[in-house]
Amino acid sequence: MAVSVDSSVEARLDQIESRIAIEELLAAYGQGFDQEDADRLRTIWWDDAYFDLGDVFGNYTGIDAIMEATAGFWTAMQWMNHWMATPTIKVSGDRATGACGVDCMVHDNENGPTMIGGTYTDEFERRDGVWKFSRRAFDMHYLTPVKDWTPAAGKFAG
Amino acid sequence: MAVSVDSSVEARLDQIESRIAIEELLAAYGQGFDQEDADRLRTIWWDDAYFDLGDVFGNYTGIDAIMEATAGFWTAMQWMNHWMATPTIKVSGDRATGACGVDCMVHDNENGPTMIGGTYTDEFERRDGVWKFSRRAFDMHYLTPVKDWTPAAGKFAG
Amino acid sequence: MAVSVDSSVEARLDQIESRIAIEELLAAYGQGFDQEDADRLRTIWWDDAYFDLGDVFGNYTGIDAIMEATAGFWTAMQWMNHWMATPTIKVSGDRATGACGVDCMVHDNENGPTMIGGTYTDEFERRDGVWKFSRRAFDMHYLTPVKDWTPAAGKFAG
Repeated sequence: MAVSVDSSVEARLDQIESRIAIEELLAAYGQGFDQEDADRLRTIWWDDAYFDLGDVFGNYTGIDAIMEATAGFWTAMQWMNHWMATPTIKVSGDRATGACGVDCMVHDNENGPTMIGGTYTDEFERRDGVWKFSRRAFDMHYLTPVKDWTPAAGKFAG
Repeated sequence: MAVSVDSSVEARLDQIESRIAIEELLAAYGQGFDQEDADRLRTIWWDDAYFDLGDVFGNYTGIDAIMEATAGFWTAMQWMNHWMATPTIKVSGDRATGACGVDCMVHDNENGPTMIGGTYTDEFERRDGVWKFSRRAFDMHYLTPVKDWTPAAGKFAG
Repeated sequence: MAVSVDSSVEARLDQIESRIAIEELLAAYGQGFDQEDADRLRTIWWDDAYFDLGDVFGNYTGIDAIMEATAGFWTAMQWMNHWMATPTIKVSGDRATGACGVDCMVHDNENGPTMIGGTYTDEFERRDGVWKFSRRAFDMHYLTPVKDWTPAAGKFAG
């Protein structure tokens, strides 16, 4: 009986730890983009991941295509600032799905300061004990260039 | 002794899982409003829940009044976009309290694009093993119509 | 063998509970600032904590200096509104590190309504079973006064 209790505890801990690992991926995505940290971003995707940013930003299959697109975004924008909202996450064994809102301010080379809002819908897989994104799709609510929006201080100013 | 250890582990797991269930409610509230998903929103409130949005948006008692008001907001606004911030949550048995910040952009039919910021103060109850909102009160910090704010892309554009 | 299993469970629960305690600190920081709740903010810092807000807002060593600076911010700004984004947190025994994005709207007495975005990099310590901030550093991305931004409703209006 002790064994059956322990196996139930193990399953419950595993659910919780999986959720935490996925929360870390969500946060790492935003921080990695903002810090232009390609090495870190490379660790959050499975090799065969699919990344669909929609009509404006395109879709990409496989880690190399994703990282190439990422480098392109860094060229097209002076800076980015992501906030990831409190997510929903559903873990089922070695697979999980989730959704989270994003509020993103970027400085686009063409349009200048721009607010982007929307929702990511995600799929995660655990392979060899490690959780990573297998699929991320962005449902853009709006992309809005903002006027008279000039930083007076901070590393993105001037 | 094994039993007492297990009961302590059970209590600790229950606290953690309760917190996760409540985080899911917080996120579902924002996602449900933005996706105009009445079926989903109906699942997050207890039948006798109280929802107090303050002077501007009114207060509502009971699930039917809440859902009717929700439908009204969807009529009064072209779209909504909620971000729920990292919350505080305190679980005590089958009751819990919490607070979380919200950053909300809406398109109001009268005022156009509008930023709303504030804090929700929440009460949750667990009945038959399920956590739902029993009370949600909104402390509005500001409601600010924004000018020259026109989405250039995204599903809320045009 | 039961003992070794239990000790592993204990360690895993402790990791999870530590993460939760730290998430509560992150949220309490934002809520405490916005509600000008000095008593609450005083509980989140160790006596010898270091708080580095960078060039614009200065750096402070020790709880008394931190609380004095906090009172000064409340004098310099009519109001603040913080959202803390989904964080990364790494717990290692009685120490932890973390990072989280912040989206902050303030009403500065000189500049009026101002948007501040950036990332906090944090260190936490557990002493006598309690987690608190031992170090918080802010990497400001931008501080941007916004024009034509006048709340029409909410407690920060008028």
